[in-house]
Amino acid sequence: MKLYMAPRAPNPKRVCMFLAEKGIDTIEWIAVDLNAGAHRDQAFVSKNPLARVPVLELDDGRYISESRAICSWIEAHHPEPSLMGETGEARAFIEMYDRYVEWYLLLPTAQWIRHAHPGLVALENPQFPDFAENQAKKRETGLAWLEERLSQNPWVAGSDFTIADITAFCAIEFSRVMKFKPAEAGYAQIQHWRDRVAARPSASAGDHLPTA
Amino acid sequence: MKLYMAPRAPNPKRVCMFLAEKGIDTIEWIAVDLNAGAHRDQAFVSKNPLARVPVLELDDGRYISESRAICSWIEAHHPEPSLMGETGEARAFIEMYDRYVEWYLLLPTAQWIRHAHPGLVALENPQFPDFAENQAKKRETGLAWLEERLSQNPWVAGSDFTIADITAFCAIEFSRVMKFKPAEAGYAQIQHWRDRVAARPSASAGDHLPTA
Repeated sequence: MKLYMAPRAPNPKRVCMFLAEKGIDTIEWIAVDLNAGAHRDQAFVSKNPLARVPVLELDDGRYISESRAICSWIEAHHPEPSLMGETGEARAFIEMYDRYVEWYLLLPTAQWIRHAHPGLVALENPQFPDFAENQAKKRETGLAWLEERLSQNPWVAGSDFTIADITAFCAIEFSRVMKFKPAEAGYAQIQHWRDRVAARPSASAGDHLPTA
Repeated sequence: MKLYMAPRAPNPKRVCMFLAEKGIDTIEWIAVDLNAGAHRDQAFVSKNPLARVPVLELDDGRYISESRAICSWIEAHHPEPSLMGETGEARAFIEMYDRYVEWYLLLPTAQWIRHAHPGLVALENPQFPDFAENQAKKRETGLAWLEERLSQNPWVAGSDFTIADITAFCAIEFSRVMKFKPAEAGYAQIQHWRDRVAARPSASAGDHLPTA
């Protein structure tokens, strides 16, 4: 199998961390140069018509895209350790927490950065600085929820490390390009949790292509 | 069980249609007045800390929110007819198509309408007209993909009606407040599919509270 990804981009990193947590290291990683627009080339669009990384190429030649759907495919074929819930009941609640993070933390974080950071004008053109500021403010709602949640639970979805921790970690780490550090912004619980995730071997997955 | 929802809002409608397709009519629906800000009241925020409808109150007193997570919970407890895939493999691909629709059609549609329609200033304040226009343009990418997809397949995820059709239908119907009609905009396949979905008994679910 092959994973089309872009080093350091938050969505590909979600899948890379997920694979690392599963102990899967048999997948070939292929970097797609987003700044050069390689994700809009016909060769890539034939793999994902929506022109987004990551994409997983399966051994039978099919392609699956969308980070969370790729993780669902991996979870179905490599169930241990469970990162998305072992029962339908658990799966639904973990999906709820993962979506809280994705929609109220990762999305406003990404929109803030894409519309505010000069390095991302290749991906978001035109940028809307007023909208960026508005998204930075909306992001505070997600951060405040996460801070409260982590004051009551060791991990985002409760007692176990799950995909929701991966999504949240990728959102927090992505905002480092804006010099964001949880503790400095008053989020002590998020900092404490972030440092525990950063200590896991999976934390650096997706930052660089694996060396042969 | 109780479903906290808002008539005609696209996300609650996803869950209402999902329930109708499952033939479940034993859930009490409770309208939350979004224009009056009732979703931000403490009574509601104790059910969903992110202050969004819909929320499903389970018989054991727990609450589950986020439309797609609620659907996952319902699917786990009422598997027939399957709307999210019977195997892990099918679930992953249906999730991919559902996310295509959610991220590249429903999200830009919602952002376009929330930032452009005068009736939605209570939900999105300030509105950013330039951003609305930009999202209306991004939405064309999602529409073009859907048009192509439906020229090759009877339903969004392939041969069967699934949750991805529900999500897409709610996005298309929501854009009627902007006078959007697929055929008039040049999307003949979407119109044809939309009319087939509209003929299903589930299509009007979520437009009004059920009468006792």
